[in-house]
Amino acid sequence: MESINFLKNGFGYEDLRALPPESLGDLAAEVRKMIVDVVGENGGHLGSSLGSVELCIALLRKFDPLADRVVFDVGHQVYPYKILSDRSDRFCTLRTLEGISGFPRRAESPCDHFDTGHSSTSISAALGYAKARDLLGQNHHVVAVIGDAALINGLAFEALNHVKETQTRLIIVLNDNKHSISPRVGGFATILARLSASTSYNKIKSAIKDSCRALPKGEALEKSLESIHAQIKALVKPQNIFDELEINYWGPFDGHNIDETEMIFELAKSYDRPVLLHFSTVKGKGLPEAEADPTKYHQMAPRTEREAAERTFPKARTWSDAASGVTEQLAQADDRIVCLTAAMATGVKLETFRARFPHRFFDVGIAESHMLTLAAGMAAGGLRPWVFIYSTFLQRAMDQLTHDVALQNLPVVLMIDRAGLIGSDGETHQGLLDVSWSRAIPNLEVYAPADEVSLRQMMTYAADRAGPTVIRYPRGSLPIRNNLFNGRESLGSVMIREGEDWALIGHGVTVHILLEAREQANASGLSTPALIDLRRLKPLDVDFLDEVLKNYPTVVVAEENYLCGGVGEALASRVAELGTANCLKRLGVPDRFIHHATIAQQREFCDLTVEGVLNCVVDRAGLKTCAHTA
Amino acid sequence: MESINFLKNGFGYEDLRALPPESLGDLAAEVRKMIVDVVGENGGHLGSSLGSVELCIALLRKFDPLADRVVFDVGHQVYPYKILSDRSDRFCTLRTLEGISGFPRRAESPCDHFDTGHSSTSISAALGYAKARDLLGQNHHVVAVIGDAALINGLAFEALNHVKETQTRLIIVLNDNKHSISPRVGGFATILARLSASTSYNKIKSAIKDSCRALPKGEALEKSLESIHAQIKALVKPQNIFDELEINYWGPFDGHNIDETEMIFELAKSYDRPVLLHFSTVKGKGLPEAEADPTKYHQMAPRTEREAAERTFPKARTWSDAASGVTEQLAQADDRIVCLTAAMATGVKLETFRARFPHRFFDVGIAESHMLTLAAGMAAGGLRPWVFIYSTFLQRAMDQLTHDVALQNLPVVLMIDRAGLIGSDGETHQGLLDVSWSRAIPNLEVYAPADEVSLRQMMTYAADRAGPTVIRYPRGSLPIRNNLFNGRESLGSVMIREGEDWALIGHGVTVHILLEAREQANASGLSTPALIDLRRLKPLDVDFLDEVLKNYPTVVVAEENYLCGGVGEALASRVAELGTANCLKRLGVPDRFIHHATIAQQREFCDLTVEGVLNCVVDRAGLKTCAHTA
Repeated sequence: MESINFLKNGFGYEDLRALPPESLGDLAAEVRKMIVDVVGENGGHLGSSLGSVELCIALLRKFDPLADRVVFDVGHQVYPYKILSDRSDRFCTLRTLEGISGFPRRAESPCDHFDTGHSSTSISAALGYAKARDLLGQNHHVVAVIGDAALINGLAFEALNHVKETQTRLIIVLNDNKHSISPRVGGFATILARLSASTSYNKIKSAIKDSCRALPKGEALEKSLESIHAQIKALVKPQNIFDELEINYWGPFDGHNIDETEMIFELAKSYDRPVLLHFSTVKGKGLPEAEADPTKYHQMAPRTEREAAERTFPKARTWSDAASGVTEQLAQADDRIVCLTAAMATGVKLETFRARFPHRFFDVGIAESHMLTLAAGMAAGGLRPWVFIYSTFLQRAMDQLTHDVALQNLPVVLMIDRAGLIGSDGETHQGLLDVSWSRAIPNLEVYAPADEVSLRQMMTYAADRAGPTVIRYPRGSLPIRNNLFNGRESLGSVMIREGEDWALIGHGVTVHILLEAREQANASGLSTPALIDLRRLKPLDVDFLDEVLKNYPTVVVAEENYLCGGVGEALASRVAELGTANCLKRLGVPDRFIHHATIAQQREFCDLTVEGVLNCVVDRAGLKTCAHTA
Repeated sequence: MESINFLKNGFGYEDLRALPPESLGDLAAEVRKMIVDVVGENGGHLGSSLGSVELCIALLRKFDPLADRVVFDVGHQVYPYKILSDRSDRFCTLRTLEGISGFPRRAESPCDHFDTGHSSTSISAALGYAKARDLLGQNHHVVAVIGDAALINGLAFEALNHVKETQTRLIIVLNDNKHSISPRVGGFATILARLSASTSYNKIKSAIKDSCRALPKGEALEKSLESIHAQIKALVKPQNIFDELEINYWGPFDGHNIDETEMIFELAKSYDRPVLLHFSTVKGKGLPEAEADPTKYHQMAPRTEREAAERTFPKARTWSDAASGVTEQLAQADDRIVCLTAAMATGVKLETFRARFPHRFFDVGIAESHMLTLAAGMAAGGLRPWVFIYSTFLQRAMDQLTHDVALQNLPVVLMIDRAGLIGSDGETHQGLLDVSWSRAIPNLEVYAPADEVSLRQMMTYAADRAGPTVIRYPRGSLPIRNNLFNGRESLGSVMIREGEDWALIGHGVTVHILLEAREQANASGLSTPALIDLRRLKPLDVDFLDEVLKNYPTVVVAEENYLCGGVGEALASRVAELGTANCLKRLGVPDRFIHHATIAQQREFCDLTVEGVLNCVVDRAGLKTCAHTA
């Protein structure tokens, strides 16, 4: 099946419904091919979406994507739904500038009902939709589609606990592929495995199948279904966690059997209580290499990035590589060091640490809040925990960072990966809040290395510090200029290039943008500015920076973080307090969510470019006037 | 039993162990009297601590509070432990400046092992302690003491799910008093109730009792216990959520029976796997009025506050009263308005709303993260959800506020109660981060009313706004000057008093401090400053504020929020960008955790006082120089 048969000319959910059941297998193969092709080119989440093709087909044949509310959790499994609802023509633009998002987006299609990206929101959101329906006197269905890994997050549990209280109709579709991004974790995994192995539901399945085959069309359907409900109620006695929470559990079913899945959906639609439908699926289904190594094929980089990486020799090292390498060296010397991750061992490159120190490695699953408090307990007990977490996911654990780690001034090291702009995953995965949020928390020290030498120096310092330390570093490869300056002793701010009239101040990746701007300043008719690497964002190196502000009347500060609450504001406060009358221009991320695109395109959008820096200074002769802020 | 018999001369846990069992009932009565007396005077959490007296006695007799690690969840139930471990002499200083904290504090005593205040951290922290013990080759016990209400929070569930994976010894003491601050919520409550009613454990209890009575002293103890384990393992088959998560469940036991409780603890100490011990207790035990109305007696205000409230006629209205009153009026006019709270209906004064609109009121239990995503779902579904939450507890839901509410620009109103300094609950309950954190989130508008007229105006605006709105207001009574200015149309910043040479800028409660400072300026040899109420913190009313900055060379900004990331920094950024060379002095909360004390004492500490404002300007003649920053 190589040629396109179905997915052309704007094939949508209405066409899907018109297809005879015997064509659905071919359609599924075609959807898989489209996903493999587009993800192979643009990058994206492969395995989960390959596993949910039949589920999405059945969903769109049995529910109305405009009237009913289908809420996908995370969105890793949403590609078939996007293709089959109304985006088959546009799917080739996946994750590109102004193209289809890799996650559900209400602004993109009326068939998407809740924007997601972080795990485990679907049951809460669906409950909200269900209560809105009830109170507004509407009558549509509300469906949450959630993976097994997302179910162990506290947010999902809080929602499951609340279902009983809400007294409403809700369908929860559990797409159980036995995998998180990494293999799933915890006691809940055992429960799901036990349920999957159970045979007591075969009887129900046969009953459903027989009845459904015999079902009369139209009005009589309801009545026939009711007799099946009675059988189900009789067979299902409280015996698992869902039943205990008063959510009816039906399953396990084969999530690749479209016929059976459609019947189950039909049944659930006329059920008047909350029900959880448990489907077993295979992550990476249909692509042998993805089925064999689901972790590797969970996500793919865009083709151009993969090819560039293959061309480079020796292989370009990433910030994550560098950070994990230093961690291993430190852990070799200090038995107290342990590493923690929330289902991100691969992303943060902790696989070799795990192999070398299996008893000192903790993957807690998608449970960031627990991870931070666990680390606090470990530190209180005498260990030195290193928490590796993406900036965006740290948003899930801010209270724990504040109260469990910082309040007790415990020696936990936070390695914040993917800080700053992150590219094609889009709005929900940007790391743009960590500076603003962590800067306000007492006892924290916050660092941002601009090169590997600084990273190593900061990590070595953090390993011995008595209190909590945050080190933020960006997505991607280490900079080419990977040792900007030698022989520093302190961890404070450093002037790495001399200059006159004006000064550039940055941290992390922006130091390199500023460096280039400085080199191009003369060509733009400007004098050569001084360049300062902030390095420590909190507490600010006030004495040094006050001197800079006194000596340079015009200052440009650039950071990959929101301008609101960023370190630029802290520097501005020094100006206002000193009364030095500097013209201080802040470059950073404006006050809006940043859409998916390449990182370069996102920087362009934020003026975080060489041109953006040089444009800050309009009066190029006198250099006293900053450009007017938009 | 009126006179003090036991609790004198530094009675501590060693004395407790030396007491014969027959004295323990009298001791318990004495502990209760001390709690009732001290809480009656100083205020504090009454009901939970009265219910945990016997549990704490048994804990301290069977565990070593220095070697073993007992981690109390929240801390509402910790008073008996504090009194009986090593603080009977100091307990009268509870919640007063430099006195005993109302929550566990490691800095206060070597018997406290984890600082708490927010719910549901104990299992994570205890797991951390347990792994630290294992890796460091130690051998003590680790005990988490958690209430039933705290168990439904996602953090606790994430930890329970992780227990199996950690393969470590851990004792979880579930103190089940069937109550949250309000009655508890959700499907989990049903599970616990079912377990409490179960009789199958009576057999085990008898077996334990008989065996323990017959136990030989010393070395033979271990072996005898092992035979009991076998019995327990045989009797306990996977049948509840804990067993399903591979945490052994033992219970329910009577948490007021010291003898039985001690035996259970002894048994658990020699058990080599994670175990959860389920104790039923009575909230408010021993104080008839507290047993009868556990919600009312959950927490008491200090005597002086209660008496002052009684003296005032008509009764002083609080910010919470005013906010809920306006909400009811708005809800009367708009059927789409619903109210949400996380176990705080009493604190935020939503009881009358609940009574008037029972189907439009949602108490989700201690589940702040779920509450925000639920609200987002409701808003997406067409409702207008109003979320009432204390500033400190919003810290638990920052990711949900960002991604589920703000990213989708949904019309959710956040009513942030207890914003700013909050007094005697101390570090963990201060509302000092909400401005810094929410200011960085796109799409939010953030307001802070200084009086009831502004509050009503902001709420009326929020009710119709298409996007998310945050309104922060302080703990306590409405100000005496409750209508600072009339006839405003816009919600932007307003100059409420004219002045010369210098300007004062504040929001919320600080407007009143600044007003008083302005009135006292002349007496201090200063000219009379202008006074600006910011009102809208995000987006700033830039045009108006730029004019103020241009016209007033010296500016003092005061806010009850951390200086780091506060709105003062945003104003400073305007100065630095305009190049207006103002001397801008920011008053606010310094970069440290603020201990328990009265709010007035806390303001004194932060220089948020009339004197603090006037001291900002040292060169009182010229007014150009700001005071040097400490």
